[in-house]
Amino acid sequence: MAVNFSCQRRVEFCETDAAGIVHFSSLMIYMEQAEHALLRSLGLSVALSATSHSIWPDPVLHWPRVRAECDFLSPARFEDNLLCLVSVARLGSKSVTFRHLIQSGRTDIASGSMTSVCCQRKNAQSDSVGSLIGIEIPADVREKLNQFLT
Amino acid sequence: MAVNFSCQRRVEFCETDAAGIVHFSSLMIYMEQAEHALLRSLGLSVALSATSHSIWPDPVLHWPRVRAECDFLSPARFEDNLLCLVSVARLGSKSVTFRHLIQSGRTDIASGSMTSVCCQRKNAQSDSVGSLIGIEIPADVREKLNQFLT
Amino acid sequence: MAVNFSCQRRVEFCETDAAGIVHFSSLMIYMEQAEHALLRSLGLSVALSATSHSIWPDPVLHWPRVRAECDFLSPARFEDNLLCLVSVARLGSKSVTFRHLIQSGRTDIASGSMTSVCCQRKNAQSDSVGSLIGIEIPADVREKLNQFLT
Amino acid sequence: MAVNFSCQRRVEFCETDAAGIVHFSSLMIYMEQAEHALLRSLGLSVALSATSHSIWPDPVLHWPRVRAECDFLSPARFEDNLLCLVSVARLGSKSVTFRHLIQSGRTDIASGSMTSVCCQRKNAQSDSVGSLIGIEIPADVREKLNQFLT
Repeated sequence: MAVNFSCQRRVEFCETDAAGIVHFSSLMIYMEQAEHALLRSLGLSVALSATSHSIWPDPVLHWPRVRAECDFLSPARFEDNLLCLVSVARLGSKSVTFRHLIQSGRTDIASGSMTSVCCQRKNAQSDSVGSLIGIEIPADVREKLNQFLT
Repeated sequence: MAVNFSCQRRVEFCETDAAGIVHFSSLMIYMEQAEHALLRSLGLSVALSATSHSIWPDPVLHWPRVRAECDFLSPARFEDNLLCLVSVARLGSKSVTFRHLIQSGRTDIASGSMTSVCCQRKNAQSDSVGSLIGIEIPADVREKLNQFLT
Repeated sequence: MAVNFSCQRRVEFCETDAAGIVHFSSLMIYMEQAEHALLRSLGLSVALSATSHSIWPDPVLHWPRVRAECDFLSPARFEDNLLCLVSVARLGSKSVTFRHLIQSGRTDIASGSMTSVCCQRKNAQSDSVGSLIGIEIPADVREKLNQFLT
Repeated sequence: MAVNFSCQRRVEFCETDAAGIVHFSSLMIYMEQAEHALLRSLGLSVALSATSHSIWPDPVLHWPRVRAECDFLSPARFEDNLLCLVSVARLGSKSVTFRHLIQSGRTDIASGSMTSVCCQRKNAQSDSVGSLIGIEIPADVREKLNQFLT
């Protein structure tokens, strides 16, 4: 049975554009923020480590985003209270794809999906994000993400 | 023969994130800015009309974005000089899909596509973006966009 | 006795920069968002009117920002839970100055102030923001804002 | 005699808000971008070092922003071509204050100033931005900035 993580997000003024509606890039940012809230709910604190700049509890894990796609279904406006639903659409050996739906009341505002790859630095001394290699998602992280697999 | 419109974009500091690279949402914003630059190059001034808030010369035309997708191929960093290439991938009767490629030197940073629908207000007195209906792309606009069809 | 309005704000990933801390512009945006939350708490719905694009319940009122200043006291990082305090520092006949303080635990992150002027359009038919003239703040709005005057 | 550094900046769509004008935070971001362009013009490449995340050629120098202030004088709109003028208002022993003016044709859009402090990490092994101490601006950097002192 599909289980979604959900959180709420109010449209802020600076996220609107001169067409009077929320800019498409802000809707995709809401999706990222919902992913981060889901991770926090799993105890996967995505706080940046001061020494590693990783966005995962274990400093050796990085999750660069490799794909994002979004359909914009209805406009949202300043101060709308949006419901952001997120689930795990696919849990690969090295990657995770989140599925997103943003709603305003009964109206679907946007749906999309975003994929990140689990990575480690080639060289632990370097903090260059460029020198990453994909690794298998650790079992404990996989188990937690599995709760939201639909 | 494929003809691309191109423009350059330097990565600004506020567009980077704590991972030390440009945030994915900024890459998609660069794509939108490349579309707007392409439209300007065609004499299709996308300036907002003070009375209609349309983003097209004719106040009765609106182009809400209905889909965006993007693959993030390599990280870009502060002050990188990016080349943004854009062409028209599909020119439907009522919609246009732009294809995008962002490069840093010989490295592909991101590729994607974004689709907008040609719309008109149901009621010319209203400036509500919500009350739009899709219409056929006018012949003169279609002819101009056709130059970048690949 | 000084009365502050307060709200909480978590630092989102896209608001950080490559220095690993929240970008200064995001701190000033948090201040604007705290103002809007204060206004909502007063029943001054700042929703945009579809016909007027005013950010005030009465369509004839506009509040363009005329000044902002901010001291950045300590860095804030991704996922920090910030407390945003806002009060009314000065209630002029035509303008309001909000005073802001952002804290992370017992650490002051930023303090500042922002001033807006109460305006009306010269011509009600036009929705051009440029053609505004300053007017006296209406008595009922003044009375509400007065609650947060320090 | 006052010498200003100048650069041009077009207002992008995502930088406008539902009031139909450029958001105040974008004007302050334009000022930061003009500072970075001034620094580049001096050969002070502000590229982030992969190992230090400093925003200065010498990895041991950091320039956290400590104050920003801005007066918003006239609205700017989508696709306006703005001229950004920046000079050095004050060159202290440890800090630099840039003075900014943004113009659209003959109209002043915004004026302001922003102050940064020259810093070094207390501990070269740490990349924590929080553990910085102010240091004297190096002579060669001071000499270069001095060209724009007004």
